[in-house]
Amino acid sequence: MAAKTRMVDLIARKRDGGELTTAEIDGFIHDYTAGDIPDYQAAALLMAIYLRGMNRRETVDLTLAMAHSGDTLDLHDVAPFIVDKHSSGGVGDKTSLVVLPLVAAAGAPVGKMSGRGLGSSGGTLDKMESFAGWSPTLTLPQFKRQLADIGLVLAGQTHDLAPADGKLYALRDVTATVDNRALIAASIMSKKLAAGADAIVLDVKTGSGAFMPTVAAAEELARLMVEIGEDAGRRVVALISDMNQPLGHAVGNALEVREALDALRGGGPADLWAHCRAVAGHMLLLAGKADSLGAAEALVDAARADGRGLAKLRQLVVAQGGDGRQVDDPDRLPKARYVEPIEAKQSGYVTAMDTAELGWVCVRCGGGRLVKSDVIAPGVGFLLTVKIGDHIEAGQVIGEMHADDDMTLQQAQRDIPAALTVADDPAPPRPLFYATIDGEKN
Amino acid sequence: MAAKTRMVDLIARKRDGGELTTAEIDGFIHDYTAGDIPDYQAAALLMAIYLRGMNRRETVDLTLAMAHSGDTLDLHDVAPFIVDKHSSGGVGDKTSLVVLPLVAAAGAPVGKMSGRGLGSSGGTLDKMESFAGWSPTLTLPQFKRQLADIGLVLAGQTHDLAPADGKLYALRDVTATVDNRALIAASIMSKKLAAGADAIVLDVKTGSGAFMPTVAAAEELARLMVEIGEDAGRRVVALISDMNQPLGHAVGNALEVREALDALRGGGPADLWAHCRAVAGHMLLLAGKADSLGAAEALVDAARADGRGLAKLRQLVVAQGGDGRQVDDPDRLPKARYVEPIEAKQSGYVTAMDTAELGWVCVRCGGGRLVKSDVIAPGVGFLLTVKIGDHIEAGQVIGEMHADDDMTLQQAQRDIPAALTVADDPAPPRPLFYATIDGEKN
Repeated sequence: MAAKTRMVDLIARKRDGGELTTAEIDGFIHDYTAGDIPDYQAAALLMAIYLRGMNRRETVDLTLAMAHSGDTLDLHDVAPFIVDKHSSGGVGDKTSLVVLPLVAAAGAPVGKMSGRGLGSSGGTLDKMESFAGWSPTLTLPQFKRQLADIGLVLAGQTHDLAPADGKLYALRDVTATVDNRALIAASIMSKKLAAGADAIVLDVKTGSGAFMPTVAAAEELARLMVEIGEDAGRRVVALISDMNQPLGHAVGNALEVREALDALRGGGPADLWAHCRAVAGHMLLLAGKADSLGAAEALVDAARADGRGLAKLRQLVVAQGGDGRQVDDPDRLPKARYVEPIEAKQSGYVTAMDTAELGWVCVRCGGGRLVKSDVIAPGVGFLLTVKIGDHIEAGQVIGEMHADDDMTLQQAQRDIPAALTVADDPAPPRPLFYATIDGEKN
Repeated sequence: MAAKTRMVDLIARKRDGGELTTAEIDGFIHDYTAGDIPDYQAAALLMAIYLRGMNRRETVDLTLAMAHSGDTLDLHDVAPFIVDKHSSGGVGDKTSLVVLPLVAAAGAPVGKMSGRGLGSSGGTLDKMESFAGWSPTLTLPQFKRQLADIGLVLAGQTHDLAPADGKLYALRDVTATVDNRALIAASIMSKKLAAGADAIVLDVKTGSGAFMPTVAAAEELARLMVEIGEDAGRRVVALISDMNQPLGHAVGNALEVREALDALRGGGPADLWAHCRAVAGHMLLLAGKADSLGAAEALVDAARADGRGLAKLRQLVVAQGGDGRQVDDPDRLPKARYVEPIEAKQSGYVTAMDTAELGWVCVRCGGGRLVKSDVIAPGVGFLLTVKIGDHIEAGQVIGEMHADDDMTLQQAQRDIPAALTVADDPAPPRPLFYATIDGEKN
């Protein structure tokens, strides 16, 4: 009764635009996680928060309360300083597969919990599972041993990290309270804090394939996450990056792995490498491995040039049960049954792409998940070799479709060109990054 | 899955300030009543409605959907025209006990579903149960037979009228979404529409003992309910009445019954009679028993003067199993063990009262309910014989406390004077009514 009354008072205060105290936020998260606050009260509070907002102090309190709602990892017994990255999700975003081995190879240990894809964005674990036998399931001792041994781990969230976030996210998903800056920031940062990162590079994407539709919205979210990190005593840098077109050419799990291997070998699409180089550089800078971004990027270049990055990825694959020969020979990666060209339908300049739709094309071919229980076909997907700003001719081959059946193949051959806006007048190429938000420089 | 998606879309639209269609509101109420929409989604929608509001059309749709969520009564086989009243609740509000017999005696049948008290406001059924043996539990055939026989029934809500309202109200109570005009109006009017009223007089109270704190807020709520009634094809008049002090002198079940009997006998406090006369007059006017309010009030006066009103109340008591001798001899009504004077603590003018607190004094003595399962002590309560504007002297007897034990007695003797604001300068007496809102005159 007392708890119930208190919760109603708390909802009413937020409903009326008031502030919640640190103790109230802690109590809410603790009691909700313990099942002592019913979903309907949490839903009412979430909607009040959605419409009335939370200030920086409340958002930090919420994040910390969520971060401490379950286990928290401390990896300092095996690594002196842990640097992590987070991408807000995008189409063709295989950055982690390139960046993490390079950072680890350059001497900054990376022990990362990662997620799976849902909806139009792919997930790093799904991509890694293109390696036969590779598993993201590690016990904490296994995780620590591998981190100590090779300086690189990529695992699923096997621990009970920030369970409040999982529970709240499921509720937000069915109560139209997902798309709120404070709630998004708290959700992302609580998991990173619980996972024990000392420093975090946030890759916040904006554009037609991203959750944040505008640069301004992405910057606001990024700034809030940087502030949360600062207040929680972590070093955080956020990059606002473009997601108005897929990153690189490949969309689809094994195709993206192959493109990541190309990048680690010194090849691959230029935009992908430029993006990975910047993210990896910022991670090394935060980890204290260089004094400037330029110097950090030089470390990245060196780790690529001498093959240490690729070797580190091979170590990661093998250490977690995967087939290292697939790193050496990408032709051993899973393949789709059919590979057919994708042709442009119109002539003109590519001025825009419906990037989320391009992600959905891959999902519909079996390369992603509509619901969590969907099983992914690793070989399917596509290469799209044109970029915004390019000129194309009707009938020109603009990519390559990889599909397991004729129906999805033909559908994708229609859908992919249709997701491109083609106009008579050229559009300028898109920048890779719009801004860098650094807590120390604010 | 389809239903879930639809509900999320609906919550999101209202969250963003959009309108819900008639079909969407019908679907929500139907599915929620059927248990097909979880409480957490309803809670999120209620908070979005609370903060974004609903327009007149949406509010009418919500009311009608709730009215049709269960059984609806049609009493036209036993009475050609049904007039009902509703009070928004107040302290010392025994209006129904006076008004309903007079209206029935003047020829307008009254078949009313009524409620019980909870919190600082009393309930008519609780007051009526001061008559030994009287029961509000009637089957529909019993209800109709009595309505046909004596033209007056006062029953609990035995039918499944507007079950959506009951379910939504319970949810609003624990999610801080009670205090919203559209939701309040829909809740009240849905039950009245389901109960088959052709015309309704709404007594919307405002002041320190009422749910609506200001005249403006009460008027807004009243106007909305009148509009809903109009759009639903019913005649509705709303009176905005004062609840800055108890109505009459008596607060407590049997004490209020006794005061109502006094009023029907031609006595009792002047404010109580003036209030009852206006409410009864409007009911007779709506029922077509007179051409003007003045003529209707003359019918009320006549039914009181010749004892028909009192006789009708006696019929009501006896028809539902009560002891008619208690009507004839109010000394037979339940009594408290102790009766002691209440004395003023300060000299000066009474300028205000904490009327809700006065209601709570009665509850704390056992005369009301903190939770639904509380059993009421009918004899306890108090008479407060001073009104705002009166001059009092310290030590002057300002009322009479009726209590069943010494502890609550002494506490009440302290609390009641403390609920009065006494000042050197006089305050004007409070009006009984602030406004009349009539759908036909808008």
